[in-house]
Amino acid sequence: MSSTSVPKGTRDFLPDQMSGRKFLLNLLEELFQRHAFLPIETPSMEKIDTLLGKYGEEGDRLIFKVLNRGDRLSRALSSICSQSDIAVKETNSLADAALRYDLTIPFARFISQHRNDLHFPFKRYQIQPVWRADRPQKGRYREFVQCDVDIIGSSSILNELELIQITGEAFSSLGLSDVIVKINHRKLLEGIVTETGTNVPFQKITIVLDKWEKIGLEAVKNELSQAGMKEKEIEVLIRYVHQNTSINSIQTLPSNQMIEAGCSELEQILDWADKYCKVKVELDLKLARGLDYYTGIIIEAIHPEFGSSILGGGRYDNLTGMFGLPGVSGVGISFGADRIYDLLSLKRLLPESPFNRKSVLILNLGAEPEWMIRAASLIRESDAVADIYPDESKLKKQMKFANDKGFDFVVFMGAKERSEGTLKIRNMQSGDELELKSDELSTFFKK
Amino acid sequence: MSSTSVPKGTRDFLPDQMSGRKFLLNLLEELFQRHAFLPIETPSMEKIDTLLGKYGEEGDRLIFKVLNRGDRLSRALSSICSQSDIAVKETNSLADAALRYDLTIPFARFISQHRNDLHFPFKRYQIQPVWRADRPQKGRYREFVQCDVDIIGSSSILNELELIQITGEAFSSLGLSDVIVKINHRKLLEGIVTETGTNVPFQKITIVLDKWEKIGLEAVKNELSQAGMKEKEIEVLIRYVHQNTSINSIQTLPSNQMIEAGCSELEQILDWADKYCKVKVELDLKLARGLDYYTGIIIEAIHPEFGSSILGGGRYDNLTGMFGLPGVSGVGISFGADRIYDLLSLKRLLPESPFNRKSVLILNLGAEPEWMIRAASLIRESDAVADIYPDESKLKKQMKFANDKGFDFVVFMGAKERSEGTLKIRNMQSGDELELKSDELSTFFKK
Repeated sequence: MSSTSVPKGTRDFLPDQMSGRKFLLNLLEELFQRHAFLPIETPSMEKIDTLLGKYGEEGDRLIFKVLNRGDRLSRALSSICSQSDIAVKETNSLADAALRYDLTIPFARFISQHRNDLHFPFKRYQIQPVWRADRPQKGRYREFVQCDVDIIGSSSILNELELIQITGEAFSSLGLSDVIVKINHRKLLEGIVTETGTNVPFQKITIVLDKWEKIGLEAVKNELSQAGMKEKEIEVLIRYVHQNTSINSIQTLPSNQMIEAGCSELEQILDWADKYCKVKVELDLKLARGLDYYTGIIIEAIHPEFGSSILGGGRYDNLTGMFGLPGVSGVGISFGADRIYDLLSLKRLLPESPFNRKSVLILNLGAEPEWMIRAASLIRESDAVADIYPDESKLKKQMKFANDKGFDFVVFMGAKERSEGTLKIRNMQSGDELELKSDELSTFFKK
Repeated sequence: MSSTSVPKGTRDFLPDQMSGRKFLLNLLEELFQRHAFLPIETPSMEKIDTLLGKYGEEGDRLIFKVLNRGDRLSRALSSICSQSDIAVKETNSLADAALRYDLTIPFARFISQHRNDLHFPFKRYQIQPVWRADRPQKGRYREFVQCDVDIIGSSSILNELELIQITGEAFSSLGLSDVIVKINHRKLLEGIVTETGTNVPFQKITIVLDKWEKIGLEAVKNELSQAGMKEKEIEVLIRYVHQNTSINSIQTLPSNQMIEAGCSELEQILDWADKYCKVKVELDLKLARGLDYYTGIIIEAIHPEFGSSILGGGRYDNLTGMFGLPGVSGVGISFGADRIYDLLSLKRLLPESPFNRKSVLILNLGAEPEWMIRAASLIRESDAVADIYPDESKLKKQMKFANDKGFDFVVFMGAKERSEGTLKIRNMQSGDELELKSDELSTFFKK
């Protein structure tokens, strides 16, 4: 017998989960559309050199590679086997393609490849699964959905504003009004690091700062020290980034070109966000984001009842450079759809019915099939969901089915109704029953 | 520089293509929902033994395998290299997981795994990509979307009717009213094969018959002969299946139990289809379908202007048996989404605008950003698409952008409008211009 389970870290989605997921993703998609973002999709597989080297050493290890076939595989194996030492590192020759690890690198490749067919500034959204061979744990899967929104080809901070507006609108529509958006600026952070006088590269420092919420201040200090920062430098860095969380106190920072550039954009965004965004936006100078490619404003959204961030993003000035298209500025955010779903589920904010509209089951109690077929058509014409219980069976069994599935109404024609030429409708919630003529069905469900 | 192309046989979808794909898939999804089908999703990867051996030898070769990692990979390589002869056949040890080849086998695994959490009869739809390492050619891709609808756990032919109703409704809503649905019955076909007196297994014969439309009658005869059928047997078979294409002429067939069972269901379905389905349904005794697991009515939809079928399906009595759940009858159809898209595109039946509603670009001609931000919010509240051109640039450039992107309207506030406190709206199609006050914006786009 074949295996009846799925690979580690992957999931089936049953109808109850699907209805919640669709509710969430449709709401986001509809919002992106109203903001003139257009959808794109990229293949699940990319050429392996498109992906390798883009996510650091750890990332390379987590990429799912697709095994070559036929002659290419034979040749690769012969070559591996002829070596005195079988090195797994060399197994890249076994795979020419790999599953995408995120939506960002494929998007950068996409922009570069199709640059002549796109109109810039280009606003796109993309909702597709990504794959990481990570150790599965609660809330961390090997296949999960990313939901990315980017504007590329414009450096105006009106773009940052729009993304924060979308963030606010999304979470308030979802009923998550206590979400907080944290923002910071990579230039401001770099300006501060410059002021410490350290020789440690900025990127190394942001990787440590990014862990602050997770590991705490003391551990951050230790890691900065391990990264090569002197105690004095660490003290200066921490003093600046730890204490300043209001736009006014930014003014007490030392002044250099990068700090000024960062502050000026942050001030503008915080002012606009206050007026035009349906979400609390806070400056957080500790916010660093882990990814190398950010160069401007960085964004993260958190929910007080949830440990990890549920949205992240920022401005990047040269993402497409590695694909031969340098100097195209963009800004984007990524909704953590799986985490947001978990949060909505925890707070019971997802729709309960698996049907997304009024739903009716036609019971099969020995009425003419023709009658049931016509009744179902009439109900569907009124835009409700209609189903016929396909096999004639006991009333009790069919009622249990209606109840288990979450139908709002059942319609039936028993012996009495058949003799009178009527049918009965029962509201499954209230238990109310009503007698109707067949041709009144469509009107009944329209209201 | 990293590669800027995608793996062979895979595709990017640009916004213009996406809007057509979304139009098609949303229409189908909405239709499935009205018929009380519920969505499920299965992981892109299945355990390799879930997939291998289910699609024949050729199928096994076309499955994309996912390379193992770390120790498992080292061990597998050591074992392969220690063999005197490096056998690619043994490379299954290199992969524990593989990408799904269709939605049917994962669905069978799903039903078996979750049988206790589902209510039967279970109606599901599933729209997800599948992968096949086939040689790419026009209309054949290595990654493509399948769109499956199945009812499992009921043997009533009301289910077959519903699937044909959905087929009719789908194609007539899409504007493809000249689609023809062909039906046949595996039992009837098997009864006819029995009448020929041949010893060749029924499944071998269906595989040859399935090629009839593609290779023609003479080639079918040759292949049947190669499969071991005697000339006389072939003659009888062809005489029966070739000439009977109306339900009345079925009556002239010889009589045995299988032929009678098949005919009785076909008669009922053809009668109902005539009354309740928005599509022409024809009996075609040559229709065989390639897959082994069909046991009852089989269905195919074709379009006169398109070579290959655009939908296929049928009843299966024991699909879940291989996953330890025997004797559960089901019936399903699969829409060939990529082919239907190509057909709609060919016949210009897809929506032209990439936006799915009224769309407005706010030109950036030196007006206060605040004004543009507020105007965009007002327009979005009226449920139209609104975009702000993010950078102040020449009118001509912005108008070209509006035109290229397909915006319906542009809104702007030049120097004159600023001094008068008004704004101007231009209909991009007609060229008509209109002056408005800001607070009239939302009302204007609502109508």
